[in-house]
Amino acid sequence: MYFRNGDAGLLSPVWAGCAVSALVDDDAWLGAMLEAEVALARAQGALGVIPASAVGPIADAADPRRLDLAALAREARGAANPVVVLVQLLTSLVAKENSGAAEFVHRGGTSQDILDTAAMLVANRAFGRIREDLSRTAGSLAALADHHRHTPMAGRTLTQHAVPITFGLKAAGWLSLVLDALDRVRRLDFPAQLGGAAGTLASYVEYARLADVAPGHGPALAARFAAELGLREPLVPWHTIRTPLADIAAVSAFVTAAVGKFALDVQVMSRTEIAEVAEPGADGRGVSSAMPQKRNPVLATLIMAAARQAPGSAMVLGQCVLAEDERSAGGWHAEWQPLRECLRLAGGAVETAAELADGLRVFPDRLRSNLELSGGAIVSERVNAALAPALGKVAAKKLLGRLACDDGKFGEALLSAPELAGILDEEAVRDLLDPSRYLGSSAALVDRVLARHRELSR
Amino acid sequence: MYFRNGDAGLLSPVWAGCAVSALVDDDAWLGAMLEAEVALARAQGALGVIPASAVGPIADAADPRRLDLAALAREARGAANPVVVLVQLLTSLVAKENSGAAEFVHRGGTSQDILDTAAMLVANRAFGRIREDLSRTAGSLAALADHHRHTPMAGRTLTQHAVPITFGLKAAGWLSLVLDALDRVRRLDFPAQLGGAAGTLASYVEYARLADVAPGHGPALAARFAAELGLREPLVPWHTIRTPLADIAAVSAFVTAAVGKFALDVQVMSRTEIAEVAEPGADGRGVSSAMPQKRNPVLATLIMAAARQAPGSAMVLGQCVLAEDERSAGGWHAEWQPLRECLRLAGGAVETAAELADGLRVFPDRLRSNLELSGGAIVSERVNAALAPALGKVAAKKLLGRLACDDGKFGEALLSAPELAGILDEEAVRDLLDPSRYLGSSAALVDRVLARHRELSR
Amino acid sequence: MYFRNGDAGLLSPVWAGCAVSALVDDDAWLGAMLEAEVALARAQGALGVIPASAVGPIADAADPRRLDLAALAREARGAANPVVVLVQLLTSLVAKENSGAAEFVHRGGTSQDILDTAAMLVANRAFGRIREDLSRTAGSLAALADHHRHTPMAGRTLTQHAVPITFGLKAAGWLSLVLDALDRVRRLDFPAQLGGAAGTLASYVEYARLADVAPGHGPALAARFAAELGLREPLVPWHTIRTPLADIAAVSAFVTAAVGKFALDVQVMSRTEIAEVAEPGADGRGVSSAMPQKRNPVLATLIMAAARQAPGSAMVLGQCVLAEDERSAGGWHAEWQPLRECLRLAGGAVETAAELADGLRVFPDRLRSNLELSGGAIVSERVNAALAPALGKVAAKKLLGRLACDDGKFGEALLSAPELAGILDEEAVRDLLDPSRYLGSSAALVDRVLARHRELSR
Amino acid sequence: MYFRNGDAGLLSPVWAGCAVSALVDDDAWLGAMLEAEVALARAQGALGVIPASAVGPIADAADPRRLDLAALAREARGAANPVVVLVQLLTSLVAKENSGAAEFVHRGGTSQDILDTAAMLVANRAFGRIREDLSRTAGSLAALADHHRHTPMAGRTLTQHAVPITFGLKAAGWLSLVLDALDRVRRLDFPAQLGGAAGTLASYVEYARLADVAPGHGPALAARFAAELGLREPLVPWHTIRTPLADIAAVSAFVTAAVGKFALDVQVMSRTEIAEVAEPGADGRGVSSAMPQKRNPVLATLIMAAARQAPGSAMVLGQCVLAEDERSAGGWHAEWQPLRECLRLAGGAVETAAELADGLRVFPDRLRSNLELSGGAIVSERVNAALAPALGKVAAKKLLGRLACDDGKFGEALLSAPELAGILDEEAVRDLLDPSRYLGSSAALVDRVLARHRELSR
Repeated sequence: MYFRNGDAGLLSPVWAGCAVSALVDDDAWLGAMLEAEVALARAQGALGVIPASAVGPIADAADPRRLDLAALAREARGAANPVVVLVQLLTSLVAKENSGAAEFVHRGGTSQDILDTAAMLVANRAFGRIREDLSRTAGSLAALADHHRHTPMAGRTLTQHAVPITFGLKAAGWLSLVLDALDRVRRLDFPAQLGGAAGTLASYVEYARLADVAPGHGPALAARFAAELGLREPLVPWHTIRTPLADIAAVSAFVTAAVGKFALDVQVMSRTEIAEVAEPGADGRGVSSAMPQKRNPVLATLIMAAARQAPGSAMVLGQCVLAEDERSAGGWHAEWQPLRECLRLAGGAVETAAELADGLRVFPDRLRSNLELSGGAIVSERVNAALAPALGKVAAKKLLGRLACDDGKFGEALLSAPELAGILDEEAVRDLLDPSRYLGSSAALVDRVLARHRELSR
Repeated sequence: MYFRNGDAGLLSPVWAGCAVSALVDDDAWLGAMLEAEVALARAQGALGVIPASAVGPIADAADPRRLDLAALAREARGAANPVVVLVQLLTSLVAKENSGAAEFVHRGGTSQDILDTAAMLVANRAFGRIREDLSRTAGSLAALADHHRHTPMAGRTLTQHAVPITFGLKAAGWLSLVLDALDRVRRLDFPAQLGGAAGTLASYVEYARLADVAPGHGPALAARFAAELGLREPLVPWHTIRTPLADIAAVSAFVTAAVGKFALDVQVMSRTEIAEVAEPGADGRGVSSAMPQKRNPVLATLIMAAARQAPGSAMVLGQCVLAEDERSAGGWHAEWQPLRECLRLAGGAVETAAELADGLRVFPDRLRSNLELSGGAIVSERVNAALAPALGKVAAKKLLGRLACDDGKFGEALLSAPELAGILDEEAVRDLLDPSRYLGSSAALVDRVLARHRELSR
Repeated sequence: MYFRNGDAGLLSPVWAGCAVSALVDDDAWLGAMLEAEVALARAQGALGVIPASAVGPIADAADPRRLDLAALAREARGAANPVVVLVQLLTSLVAKENSGAAEFVHRGGTSQDILDTAAMLVANRAFGRIREDLSRTAGSLAALADHHRHTPMAGRTLTQHAVPITFGLKAAGWLSLVLDALDRVRRLDFPAQLGGAAGTLASYVEYARLADVAPGHGPALAARFAAELGLREPLVPWHTIRTPLADIAAVSAFVTAAVGKFALDVQVMSRTEIAEVAEPGADGRGVSSAMPQKRNPVLATLIMAAARQAPGSAMVLGQCVLAEDERSAGGWHAEWQPLRECLRLAGGAVETAAELADGLRVFPDRLRSNLELSGGAIVSERVNAALAPALGKVAAKKLLGRLACDDGKFGEALLSAPELAGILDEEAVRDLLDPSRYLGSSAALVDRVLARHRELSR
Repeated sequence: MYFRNGDAGLLSPVWAGCAVSALVDDDAWLGAMLEAEVALARAQGALGVIPASAVGPIADAADPRRLDLAALAREARGAANPVVVLVQLLTSLVAKENSGAAEFVHRGGTSQDILDTAAMLVANRAFGRIREDLSRTAGSLAALADHHRHTPMAGRTLTQHAVPITFGLKAAGWLSLVLDALDRVRRLDFPAQLGGAAGTLASYVEYARLADVAPGHGPALAARFAAELGLREPLVPWHTIRTPLADIAAVSAFVTAAVGKFALDVQVMSRTEIAEVAEPGADGRGVSSAMPQKRNPVLATLIMAAARQAPGSAMVLGQCVLAEDERSAGGWHAEWQPLRECLRLAGGAVETAAELADGLRVFPDRLRSNLELSGGAIVSERVNAALAPALGKVAAKKLLGRLACDDGKFGEALLSAPELAGILDEEAVRDLLDPSRYLGSSAALVDRVLARHRELSR
């Protein structure tokens, strides 16, 4: 039989084959839901709510390979979520081996406890990988910033040459964003979900009472459940207190945008006419199906594709904070796919960025020749400062603006301008026009960012 | 080996198993890309650009089942799109049978010609199905509007009882939106894409020239190519003129929202305290994993889940009109997944809405008892009109506002209000308070919508 | 007293001072609401529901200059919309002159009838202006496309030189989007809103009944009301059938994006290193507060600022289709500001685009020198086609890819490549490398778009 | 002359007249830009870069009332930002009094330094107020949670009665979100911006050099500048490192959504059929222009209007992290209006929420009567747990599901069900059906949230 693949990444090369894709696909979610069911049984077993002997058979049966995922997905329509059917299937599987244990599957559980907990497991793992790739990216960018601390290049604003900067400062800017992203990823936490049907923990408490377990059981069970899974203990159930997802949405979007800024600059700088950087080469990378000469900046393109998509998914996810009652009729259900999309896009973008940062090729000669394109006009701001005492700031600016009109010959025009006679001699002009003498605090700023990187890397 | 499923719908019960899901999954896209390659060969064969004998072997080899989709997806990262690898694989498959024909695969083609054309094939098919399901929904809603033309119920504004309406008018409102959606779906068209590397058709023209085919070949080839696929002939290549996708984005979002409004009202009306309608029953539908008494409005919930997600994907897709140069580095690549998501969400939502509209259960007794909850205050606007000549509009409104404060006893309060002595007698009051006499033009408005429906259904 | 200005455009230079800004500001909305009140009185006067003598005093009093807008805005919080307070103020103003007529202000009216109708008046006027500016833009772009039909330049894909195009074809692409935008603007229509408290027209019918006006009054009043205002007659009230606003949202976003693509290309092409086009000069335009040499592409920047903002507002507006009941508690109220923002951004962007298109300066010499930057590699696709018969497509592509690696010397490398000995002589190579001979159907495609423009301009 | 008001809030009752609106309007921004100019002069004066005597005249002239804001807004189009014109006007004003000092206005400054710094001043002030209103809201919600710790009510999931909860727990949920919002607001910080034309601080350093101020001047000036304004010292200039704005966007959206969830629940609970809570009354609040009986939940409606709008503005703002080069041509310019909108919507929503929380009226009798609507079916989950040992979990659930079908008579059906004979006697059933005995850990969960509130309030 011909298997239909759903969405295996054909339309999403930014994450297809990336590490994160296997961490968030349907199998990963299914596995995480089963882990949640097992952890519930373990926690209840440990607290005496269900027989210790029931735990093993439940854990043994909870194997995603024994379930027909596509069928499960289709049947999930009946309850609008996959957990109801999953519990039926898991119960049957347990019952085959141990009919007594089957009674204890999902005891007191509600669908949202399982699915929210699975979401946190999945997100936690995805962000673990994102953290690693952000750190790798940061390391490579720090090396670039360090190495090119004094490499001058044209600073550009509103697409036009502005004043000189250094490539090190540019790389330090990319690094700053990546460090900001890392900060925000580290601040995330991932609480387990346990609340029962309407967030009171009543069903769990009731089963505990029936099993003669001491009162106060609710929060204790949640703590144990969370510990089994390596998740944070929730202060209270959060079925319609969706802070964890709003945070994930915001951080995913920021992570993707942070590396997106890096990619956007790489695209500009690798334009045919600019050609200051190139992507790392690899067999078959960047080729065109038609044009033999092409070396497309595909890594930057993949990252930008993610950066253009992430805000849509993050926006939907963040808006699900608007969840009515004790469980939303649609708000909850609208979260799952955008959550996965956020994780996939951020994860794919960051893995790609790590590769791009690691292999980025920088061409100092070209940085220099572009810097000199305007014949010195790029430092006209500096000349303005020098002339202001003699001519006044405004008059000097007007004069320099006029001299800069003749493309690429600003220096010559300056030397021959009658207005400057007696104000600046040729040597002074040559000194003023040297772009490497108008870099301001660039090196000190690079050092500041590198120091922050070292601190965060400790 | 254990196969990873990517995204088979586990997190998207609104479209899992729906007709549209198989029309837009990775296999469907892969198939559509191959159809585009075959159509190109057929068109070039027919026009004499490639040998007629090469067409058959290309068509035979273009079988999606012969390709490893997951591997193809992973390797697509090299070129940032799947077509480059696909062409290599297809060429190899053709070469195995007929090495001469292999030269003619993708002749003059560029990745975007194939992928954009595939996108239009996929979208056209998805909207074909969406159109059918919208028509089915419209039929069911028209029947409800017709049947309940005179069934009174409480009109509600800002969550509060306002004045009486009819259930027929409410259904006619839902129908209006569905007809608006149908109108907009019908207005869509789906152009083939053929432009070559930068939209000049130069490569196609060059191969034609080399084959001694007459000049003027470019647009003629595009026309033939489109005809092979049942797509519209493009006026010009549209690699960065993304109108077709912007239209699809807007219409998908509107379609989803149109049935979303219907679902939202069903959710309100099926609240436990309101209970005026219920979803069609089905085995296992609407059950809870925990609470035996639950019958959740799951169809409406699924639709709302789609309606909350669609704007995010549509927004991203619409924004891709911002595509620089002759092909965007990221803008194009950001379209594919949101396009699929738009189609899937709209398709799943509409198929679900058709089912909901077809089986919606309406409880006229409950509509009536809710209508009477306020003891007549729901027609205080009418009483106001009647009293205005005697008391003045403002004074009358103030009086009636006061009388309405005593919950559920407005009628009694009205009859015993000393201010009304000599203005309205008991019979007049009873007449005024009859909600079925304050329905305005409800029936006529229903007729207008039904007439529109008949016209569109012809 | 120091007046606080609210938002006069300080933060939105894209629309500050543009024609559209005065068409959509608070004063314009207030005026439009008053027009709606007057039209209601006129329609009811004409149909005999209110005394003809009451109409004049109402029309006279409905002067926005007599109202304290800021106070009105603040007091609107009480009812969550400005109409309730507006009706009170208008009634007082009428009463001062004619206490009898005051009774007939807003007779049978509901807030949403007035505000929705005002929204349609405002939108209609804004789109009238947008239509004009789109037409102006189209005219200028058509002239550019016509004039530069044969001006070759580098086509760029994924930021890299791809194959030659003409500047005429690029302008024709911009024109295509503008024509698409015009089409969609023309398709919009603007229905009046008249439904009464819950869309049944009951209050209007009741007042007609009390005035002994014949039945069937509801839709007739709506028709008359619409005619008074030059708006389309609504088929039915659309308080929660928000198609008109969804359409406006989609079209506004598309209009802004359509000119955004133009601006984005202008930004790329006016980069210091590319310098193929420049914005029209004007006194003080494009200057920097610091750098004398700067001529920033500010018109394109303003347009891009709008294009980045519009999707957010359009998304919110489109999502308001999800409006529960007969009037939404929040959904309706969330529309007003995003609607204005959509109109303002589209209007400002298009007025700016008209100016940019009108004065765009094109530098054919620079187009040519950039085209030649790669020493002919930009036509390697063509050379590939020529070599394919002799070497095979794949082998030829590999060879050419290698030869293209040496920056800017592709032609020389080609001539000295031993693999080509006996295949292509020098003359053939020189001919192949001439970019103006590899323009495919560019001129024919330009003609197609110009023909469409002529047709639409008739 | 008739003054046009721009946007004074007529279309935005959620913030019109609220404290935040005056903190973020055009006047406030203009004032903040002038503060930034003065702070720059002060910092440069203190460090000896400009004469101390120039500072006073600059500070004196920097009075927003002396500038024509509307004209300034219009002329801002020339540079695509208002600072260039502002500097010209300010320079003229200084020159009138002290022509020497005029030379020192905006010395070394770039537009973005001034505008970004002004944005941080404005945002800091707005969030100061938001913090206060969140604290007020938290206080009121804590009182509600405390007072109603044991007040039972129906928990609702997917619009249907689920299991009992307490009103205290519901209020504690709202409180949790508000505390989460407070946490995130407190985490925000607001860095000054100082970088010069391209983020190197070169112009500032150059003027310092010319004035013989010691090297290392750049970061020192930034620190002094920040201190003058009470803003955080930036680590490095952040012209295209837009983390502060991305954070503001995410937090604004979250704040608005957090109180949005509260409003959404108030809307549900104040529906005519549910009527469990009512908004605080106030003269003229919640009235309809037509219906005398209406008391609309307008505070909740205003909040929801904000909650539906905020995600659009926040999405645009967050996406501006994608800023190319050293200053983005459009990305920067697209931030200003969405930033203001985020602040206004969050500020208005929170001020409104504080009012709603403070005066919310709760009707315990109605909470109780709604809880009893289903005749006990709302605790069928509990009965299920009790029956499971005897009948098996699945069989018991099926039986109870059947018994619950007869609306409102679950208890009676249960008592007379033959299947239960010998399992549960009448007393046991009555005990099981008492909703106040199935509240699980509700009280303990309330205590947890109240403890967190106390901790945060310290």
